[in-house]
Amino acid sequence: MSAIEEKFDRLKTENAPGQESRKSGGDMDKALLGDPIEGRPVDFSHGDVDAFEPTPGSFGLFKQGYEEGGAQAYTEYRGRSLIRDMVAERLAAFTKAPVDADNGMILTPGTQGALFLAIAATITAGDKVAIVEPDYFANRKLVQFFDAEKVPVRLDYADSTEKAGLNLEQLEGAFKQGAKAFIFSNPNNPTGVIYSPDEIAAIAALASKYGATVIADQLYSRLQYSDCPVYSHLRACKGIDPEKIVTIMGPSKTESLSGFRLGVAFGGKSIIERMERLQAIVSLRAAGYSQAVLRSWFAEPEGWMDERIALHQAIRDDLLGRFRASEGISVRTPQAGSYLFPKLPTLSIPPQQFVHALRKQTAVTVTPGNEFAPHSADSIRLNFSQDHQAAVSAVDRLLQLLDRYRL
Amino acid sequence: MSAIEEKFDRLKTENAPGQESRKSGGDMDKALLGDPIEGRPVDFSHGDVDAFEPTPGSFGLFKQGYEEGGAQAYTEYRGRSLIRDMVAERLAAFTKAPVDADNGMILTPGTQGALFLAIAATITAGDKVAIVEPDYFANRKLVQFFDAEKVPVRLDYADSTEKAGLNLEQLEGAFKQGAKAFIFSNPNNPTGVIYSPDEIAAIAALASKYGATVIADQLYSRLQYSDCPVYSHLRACKGIDPEKIVTIMGPSKTESLSGFRLGVAFGGKSIIERMERLQAIVSLRAAGYSQAVLRSWFAEPEGWMDERIALHQAIRDDLLGRFRASEGISVRTPQAGSYLFPKLPTLSIPPQQFVHALRKQTAVTVTPGNEFAPHSADSIRLNFSQDHQAAVSAVDRLLQLLDRYRL
Repeated sequence: MSAIEEKFDRLKTENAPGQESRKSGGDMDKALLGDPIEGRPVDFSHGDVDAFEPTPGSFGLFKQGYEEGGAQAYTEYRGRSLIRDMVAERLAAFTKAPVDADNGMILTPGTQGALFLAIAATITAGDKVAIVEPDYFANRKLVQFFDAEKVPVRLDYADSTEKAGLNLEQLEGAFKQGAKAFIFSNPNNPTGVIYSPDEIAAIAALASKYGATVIADQLYSRLQYSDCPVYSHLRACKGIDPEKIVTIMGPSKTESLSGFRLGVAFGGKSIIERMERLQAIVSLRAAGYSQAVLRSWFAEPEGWMDERIALHQAIRDDLLGRFRASEGISVRTPQAGSYLFPKLPTLSIPPQQFVHALRKQTAVTVTPGNEFAPHSADSIRLNFSQDHQAAVSAVDRLLQLLDRYRL
Repeated sequence: MSAIEEKFDRLKTENAPGQESRKSGGDMDKALLGDPIEGRPVDFSHGDVDAFEPTPGSFGLFKQGYEEGGAQAYTEYRGRSLIRDMVAERLAAFTKAPVDADNGMILTPGTQGALFLAIAATITAGDKVAIVEPDYFANRKLVQFFDAEKVPVRLDYADSTEKAGLNLEQLEGAFKQGAKAFIFSNPNNPTGVIYSPDEIAAIAALASKYGATVIADQLYSRLQYSDCPVYSHLRACKGIDPEKIVTIMGPSKTESLSGFRLGVAFGGKSIIERMERLQAIVSLRAAGYSQAVLRSWFAEPEGWMDERIALHQAIRDDLLGRFRASEGISVRTPQAGSYLFPKLPTLSIPPQQFVHALRKQTAVTVTPGNEFAPHSADSIRLNFSQDHQAAVSAVDRLLQLLDRYRL
């Protein structure tokens, strides 16, 4: 294998969310037990934007942007200045700390784009980077892509109720070993837990003590359930150096605007400056006309977000009830976001094979747990931003199939 | 300077097309001679999509994509399969060689996205890469970003008429030195010259002899003027290994669809596979709804492209006439694309300062030549896809200002 083949071998995407259609079952089909269980296909690997539609008015704003022509098509690489001004003010109010629209913010092609640029602008080959396990699958891969070294920090989410469960000793250990950066998502993807104010304060204190840069992925931080404890924004935390934190958000999830590919990063000016330089050779800018859609972000119609949250909470609770009624499954209640991360009992087939069987025999797609941490192979992630009834019926089929493969 | 600061210092974008508004004049303002010359502002750093509007029907296709919902919002990372099928067939016909829609093609966020992924999927740190000088500014920067070593190959465009002027000895020398890849644009950006059939055959033979991979950026290859000689597609050339070439195109320029951020790369299956793996952590996919706009690509209304080309050719000829009437300016006739790359006479101020004066005193924006090659500092690039009259008047102001600074 050549150097480039080896490098990319670590980036395999066959099990990544959304790539299932490119996967062939191969030998796994042989182990299937019983007949298919019919039902409406549900793809829990991402949210269903047909069930939860884009923010009202978003298409109209795109149209306005298109009609504006060149001014909206060709923006600065960091995004159009008047849109940044608008969004910065709202993000400052939401995160409770100032946002510098001109020098401390960049619009990106999706939150993924922001994450890529932020990591690329923070670490170089050989650097150590603390990442949480489990956490969003791309964090690990990005660290690998830049030939940096990941230092895992465990999230003991299953043993905690009052906090996310970050192992702070491991985090300090990572910094002591020389980790230059810490990357984490809050709420955590895939578990949906949020970091307690004490945990956030501890992260701020440790990052500050060791001079580390923090990349906080808060993609899901708007979708907080009524039983969610206080959400703390790290960037608003005392003691954190504003130049050493980048916060990432975007309207792809809760607001269902993924088809426009929009994300935003805000924080340290020199990091944002580097991100823009890189964006100039990666994708130039977030699609010009799409940027106009951000005009409605954090300015949705009165009550719209509350309703969206309530509808998701109802699905969450129905699914949680079903998983918990099935023996041997443990699942923590998500406090924000639309992910469930149940841990399955031991089965007669490996978890990867169960995920395959599920897709093949029940038309239910989930993301295997080892995408998020090496030790999470016995868990599966479901994005329950779906049609309520379809999601419930899909989980019923999932549990029925699970029984078939129980030891 | 830290390692990361050093790395990004080489990626400075202050003079990159479109970034001029972020630049402050500083001391340069002191050297300005005379009063401003009034006129309608023209930004030659990119095409004017208000003068040359997006392909008819493109917005309607976006709307259809949006209305289709989830199926168009969440596509495979390499782009929606049915769109790839459609586009692959047309690109095969255009480039005169087969395109594998399923395994040999990827949709990207703009042609820039395709270039970034293609280079990242081809070279690793320490590799040698042959690049043309002058050529698109990002090629050089991308090679630097991946810590590879550029081996410049000179394009003697000014001394040639029957060919682009690639120094084939230097190209072979680069391969002999171990260059693993060759990156070039055809038509060449910034000069607008196209490579002759003999030059393309020679590139194919050399790449094949030394086992090098070629990345052919053909972004502008549809906009060929009536006086353009035969255009040869490297990928259709005998002797080229189809697994070792990636061709890049997109509808951002001639078709004025830049605001949708769409590009495409097609060629070697293993390279495309790596590009997709990387896209999964860079930006996920080209904006879903935007992908639908590609339905009209290479399927524009009858006569539309011919008219567009004729209109550009008329602007080209008017501007060429003006530049050539001014003493000491040399400029080669572009055969395709919408760039002019005149070489200016020696002035009383450095060329960078003239570019600044031009913007400040005449509201005319051009891209300084050293963005394209270290030895091209005395040239400027103009994208003449502009309102015809405005472009002519802007060039008149440019020449008037030039006279002011002549030695």
